[in-house]
Parts: sequence; structure tokens; C-alpha cells
Amino acid sequence: MDISRGNIVYSKSREKIAVHQNCYISVENGIVNGIYDTLPEEFTALPVTDFGDSVIIPAFSDLHVHAPQYPQRGLGMDLLLADWLNTYTFPQEAKFSDMDYARAVYDAFLDDLIANGTMHAVFGTIHRQSVEYLAGQMEKRGFRALIGKVNMDMNSPDYLCETAGESVRETEEFLADCAGNQYAKPIITPRFAPTCSKKLLDGLGKLAAKYGVGLQTHLVESKWEAAEAKRLFPDCSCDTEIYEKAGLMDHGPVVAAHFIFPSEEDIRILKKYDGCAVHCPDATVNVIAGITPVSALAKQGMNLALGSDIAGGHLPGTYTQAARAVQFSKLKWFYEGNDNEVVTFANAFYMATKEGGSLFGNVGSLEPGYVFDALVIRDFSDPFRRITPAETVERFCYTGTAADITARFMNGRRL
Amino acid sequence: MDISRGNIVYSKSREKIAVHQNCYISVENGIVNGIYDTLPEEFTALPVTDFGDSVIIPAFSDLHVHAPQYPQRGLGMDLLLADWLNTYTFPQEAKFSDMDYARAVYDAFLDDLIANGTMHAVFGTIHRQSVEYLAGQMEKRGFRALIGKVNMDMNSPDYLCETAGESVRETEEFLADCAGNQYAKPIITPRFAPTCSKKLLDGLGKLAAKYGVGLQTHLVESKWEAAEAKRLFPDCSCDTEIYEKAGLMDHGPVVAAHFIFPSEEDIRILKKYDGCAVHCPDATVNVIAGITPVSALAKQGMNLALGSDIAGGHLPGTYTQAARAVQFSKLKWFYEGNDNEVVTFANAFYMATKEGGSLFGNVGSLEPGYVFDALVIRDFSDPFRRITPAETVERFCYTGTAADITARFMNGRRL
Repeated sequence: MDISRGNIVYSKSREKIAVHQNCYISVENGIVNGIYDTLPEEFTALPVTDFGDSVIIPAFSDLHVHAPQYPQRGLGMDLLLADWLNTYTFPQEAKFSDMDYARAVYDAFLDDLIANGTMHAVFGTIHRQSVEYLAGQMEKRGFRALIGKVNMDMNSPDYLCETAGESVRETEEFLADCAGNQYAKPIITPRFAPTCSKKLLDGLGKLAAKYGVGLQTHLVESKWEAAEAKRLFPDCSCDTEIYEKAGLMDHGPVVAAHFIFPSEEDIRILKKYDGCAVHCPDATVNVIAGITPVSALAKQGMNLALGSDIAGGHLPGTYTQAARAVQFSKLKWFYEGNDNEVVTFANAFYMATKEGGSLFGNVGSLEPGYVFDALVIRDFSDPFRRITPAETVERFCYTGTAADITARFMNGRRL
Repeated sequence: MDISRGNIVYSKSREKIAVHQNCYISVENGIVNGIYDTLPEEFTALPVTDFGDSVIIPAFSDLHVHAPQYPQRGLGMDLLLADWLNTYTFPQEAKFSDMDYARAVYDAFLDDLIANGTMHAVFGTIHRQSVEYLAGQMEKRGFRALIGKVNMDMNSPDYLCETAGESVRETEEFLADCAGNQYAKPIITPRFAPTCSKKLLDGLGKLAAKYGVGLQTHLVESKWEAAEAKRLFPDCSCDTEIYEKAGLMDHGPVVAAHFIFPSEEDIRILKKYDGCAVHCPDATVNVIAGITPVSALAKQGMNLALGSDIAGGHLPGTYTQAARAVQFSKLKWFYEGNDNEVVTFANAFYMATKEGGSLFGNVGSLEPGYVFDALVIRDFSDPFRRITPAETVERFCYTGTAADITARFMNGRRL
């Protein structure tokens, strides 16, 4: 039993942040056991790690991140999408056929994610060997992930394109190699409909059934993409139906990045499979795709989480995206009105922790029974203005950096 | 003569960033003397400070910042404007009648600005004594500023409201006390038209003429404000004309914060007085006022700079706002199209340095004849991807913090 003391703050629901000021939290075998105002009799002999005025919060989940784009973060950010992809992204991704390069980048990237308090994430990367390396590193560290080998067999640069047959074979090998993983679990990852043939998707659908795995992809991420998907798959009424028809939504979690321009059919199908829409605020603004309709989707009961979308997004910390989700919801409301009310900070923090974490089990909260993946954030009070623990969490998300995270626990173990 | 070596990067124009890789910069009496590929014969005996692969750039200018709101940065950011003002801002500003409080906050604030590389700024604060303290501290440090005592005599909480007479008297005392300043120069600062009577503005106009000072205010910052200004001043065709008629635009620099919804008349008048529109991207998104039409105004020859607008904005570094200006221009273009093309990073950096600096003299560049207010930024290359000095500046603006600024020079003196 490990016991820590501090201000304990976590999300209860979209509406409510729970605050336990100057309290104790007990952790047994990596799982939260209880939170106490005063330490129960049976624990009083145990050592207590006292974090003083600091705030203990759950670690963050990043539900959409392109690992191989990490080296290009914050570059070429004034380009438009096509130029950005062709100048930076595609040549960058191609380098991951070189395993020495992949190892150097993925080690640094994983370090940076953990430094920024992200301990659960949904990744995509291109080349099988490099994906397996990343999955292996996460497995070793206890980093919970859904990780996929990206598939694309058309409308892409030659140097990134596989044939449908190769792509399915490589994916199957990846799924088989990762089948026994406890933390870094495989997920099927077609880039998006415009770069995937029907043959490829059908092949992946069979693998989904055979290996019992889910789907991550970019869904209705731009008006162009939604229209192009329907043009390429004329027997489908919407982007989402393409994956349903391929049998990719029946066998595991469904993670839909961006989901900015869904039709009613897209929403109906994604909800039917209990899928999660992932809002990546910085990224979709950086590449001009618009803003995910978080409030409107929440009203319809959609699961919603946050993603950094490195390197469309430029920052690795999901906490920054919690702030940005609030911020950009104000622009969404300003420009579009209707159901797009301002996202509260409580809701943004919920998406970044408890809702995002729910894909990985009892993860993303500090309630009893949850995995103790947790961060200690320094008190953000100034000498001239004390602020509350909940205010510290908001100020951290708006103004903080990795340096403000003073301790990290993963599966109950202090890093 | 002081000589530094490194990668020297500065703005030449809206379109062009100048890069001198592995070069020398000589500084005499605080003024840049020259930039050299190889050190001229006459300097070879002098010591050289070698910054290696780091990048030397001009310090930043922040053209709109509310000093007394610093203690509330990053708090209550999901509130709508009226609630944010009444819950956080007005009670916070009221505390500055207490000089002990003012000293503690302003010392920390000025430290934080300088840590973030801001060495020139346009400030507003409420209570005369506290403004004079802040001006005095800036003067002592050599921090270039235009600083004003905020005026408001109606439509404001009682505890912040003065009578027109009091407000004019206090302002005159402030102007007289600061008249001899070399660095921290006074500027007249009516909050905005909805909180200022005609009597107050006319009184301030007389002071502008008497003391030869300029104007800063919030101009056409929201649709509500633009309409309310015209309702309250029915003989004026637009918000800007209110200040023209009061004689506030003839005697010094005119700094117009936000300028989001200008009519053709607003633009014509502001240009006539060579005024500068200040875009504060984070702030106007945080308080839902929209996005300044930077590209459209630039095409019409308007001067444009950037501001943090602490604490509508949550970050003290103007470099963050350069990134945000690019980012939000993509949303402006997405939603409004027309003349609102994407702001290039070169243009954003220009606004943050050379254009903003121009209000303070030969400031904001590293060309010969400019004040050597400069920053040294660590090389942002990763071990697995070298990036250019210009890319380091972009990545710093998108992902950097004060900790990435490894040296600071103010008026040629290393801090």
C-alpha cells in the first residue's frame, strides 16, 4: 500500500470536477484504493509521500497522434494542407523504413509524451517494424496504447504506398506479433477512405474479425474528405458506413479522429458501435479543417475525447488541448451558433482524462478501482493571489508545461 | 564594442525574414553596428561571445497588455465576457489601490515579461500611483513602454469609476510626473467609448495637446462595442471618430487594440493618423470577440502589431501570439474567406518584432542602427532532424517557453 497526500482533483463527469483538498490517496497493486480526509487507523503506521500544496490529477490520454510526424512539429505551420503533406509529412513518414531512425525518434517521442503527462494514447505509424518497435517500448514501460500500422494503397506518394495484398499481410503480421500485449494493444488503422481501396478495407475487415481488434481512422475530417469518400465508395451513404460495410467496427474500440463534418448517418453509425470521436483542436485549426462540434455531439450522447494529432498539432501535451477545446468552442459558437455552446473547462478536462481513458479500462480518474496513472502538478498560486486546486488545474492547462509536472506515477509506480 | 556570434535572424519586411548563419554582430553603445560573415580586421582583437548554434533574434513587442490582470491569467477562461469581467477582472483591478499589492504584482509581471523576451510594451493600468510605480520600474530597467492610466467614468462598477473631473486630474498628474521619462513614456488610455463620457474624452483631448502624447484604447473590439459607441456618441459616424473629435489622435502614437469590426470610416481615420491596429489572438478568442482581419487590413496599408492582452490572453510571451496569429488566420479564412488569406509566419514575426517595435523608435530589428534589444534562442533541432535557424524561430513561437531563451540583451546590456 502506497499513500500520498496533497490536493486530489479528478473528473467525475462532463459537468463535475471532484476536489479533495489536503487529503490522502491510497494505492494498492497500482490501483486506487481510497481517498481520505484523515488517514484510517490501519494506515497510520505507513509512510506518506506528502506533496504539500501540489495537486494530484489523473494522467492524460491522447487519442490521436501520428508518432512518425514528431520530428516536424511546429514547422511549416503556415502552409495549406496539400503543401504541408507533400513538403513535410510524407517525406518525414517515409524515413521510418530506417529502423535506426525510428528507434531514435520513438524513444524521444515516448519520453516527451510521458514528460507531458500522457500515459495512454492511440497511435498510428507506417512501417511494420517501426510500429512493432514502438509497441514494444510502450509494453515494456507499461504505457497503455492502441497502436496501429497505417494502411494506404492509393492516392498517396509512391514511396508510402503498398499494394492491398502487402498492406493486409503486414498488418496481419503486426496483429499476430502484438496479440499477447498487456498494455500496447493493436488496432487497425487505415489512413482514411481516400487512400484505401475497397479490397484493402475488406481484407482489413477480415483481420478485425480474426484477431478481435478495433478501428482507428480519420473520419469526416474535412468537407473534401467526406465528399471524396462518398465519391470513391458510391454504395455507401456516408464516410462511416465504408468502415461498417468492411466489417471494421464490430470487434473492438472504434476511434474516429476529427469527426468535424458528420452527417446524421455518420453520427448514427458511430454511436451504434459505441465509437469515440476525437477532437484535436490545434491540429484541425493548423490545417484548416474546422472545429469538431463537441457540444452538439455531446448532446447526442457521443463519446468524445481529445488528441494532440502531432504533428498537425504542434504540442505533445493533451492538457494544452483541453484549454484549446474551450478556447476554440468560443469561436465555433461565435461563427456557427446553434448547438455549439461553449465547452466548459470541466468538460474539456473530462475528455482529456476520464473519457479518453475509458478506452483503456478503468483509467483516467482517481476514484477507487482506477489505475493509478497520475501526475503531481505544482501549486500555480502566485505569492499575491492564492488560487484553488481546481484553478491550478485550469491554469496548468492554459499556461503550464512539462516542467510544472513535478512527479509522475504509472501503474502506481513513481517514474 | 561588444561582439556576439551565432545564427542571426530578424524581420526585414512582412514578406521576408533575414537569416545570417554563423555570423558576427557588433554592438556599440547599445546600438547594432554591423553584421559580418567574417570579423573585420579592426575587431579581431576583441572578445567574442559565441552562441554556437543558437539563434539571435530581436526582443518582442507586446502592444496591448493589462498589467493589473496578470494575477488572473488562465482563470475562468470558459466564462462569457460579462461574467469574466464581473467575477475576475473588475474585482482584480480594484485591488491596485493597495500599493503593496501593486508593487508585488508589477515586479513579478515585469520579470515574467522580460523572461519571455518582451522588452517593449503598451500598458494600461487603473490607479495613478500604481501606474507611476510600474512606469518607474520600467524606466529604471530600460524597458521601453507606452503606459497609461486607464480612464472610465460610466457604465463600470462603482469601485472602479471616477468622475470625469477626477479622472482628468489624475491623468494630468500622471502625465506631468512621467514627462521626463526616457523609456517609459505616457499615453492616454480611455478604456473604451462605452465607459467614457464626452466630458471625460474632451478633457483628455486637451491633455493630449498640452503634453504632446498619444492614445491607446480598445477600438471596434466587438459588434456590441462598435454599436454601443455609436449609440452613445450619435454625432460620430464610427467608434474611431469619437477619439478624433476629442482631439486624442493628433499628438502622438495611436494604438488601437483589437480593431476586429472596423467600418471603412474606422480604417480611413486610423490610417490618417498612422495608427497601429493590435491583434491579440488568444484574448479575442478567449472572450469571443472574433479575429482581427490582419490580411485584409495589411492590404489596405494598415500598421499591425501583436499583443498578449493579459489576462484576456493567458500567456505573457508575444512569440506565442505570433504562432496564434498564423493559426487563427486559417480559421478566419475558413469561416470568412474574402480578403482574409492565411497570415504567413514571416508576417506574424514581423508584427511581433519590427512593426510592433517601430512605435518605440529604431527597435525590433537587428539591422545596423537598431537598439540591441535581443534574445538568444536555443537551437530547436532534434538529434534526429537538424532544422534551420529560421525553422528554430518558428518552432520556438509554436512550442517554446521562456526557458528556451538562454540569453537576453536590453539596450545592448546582457541581463
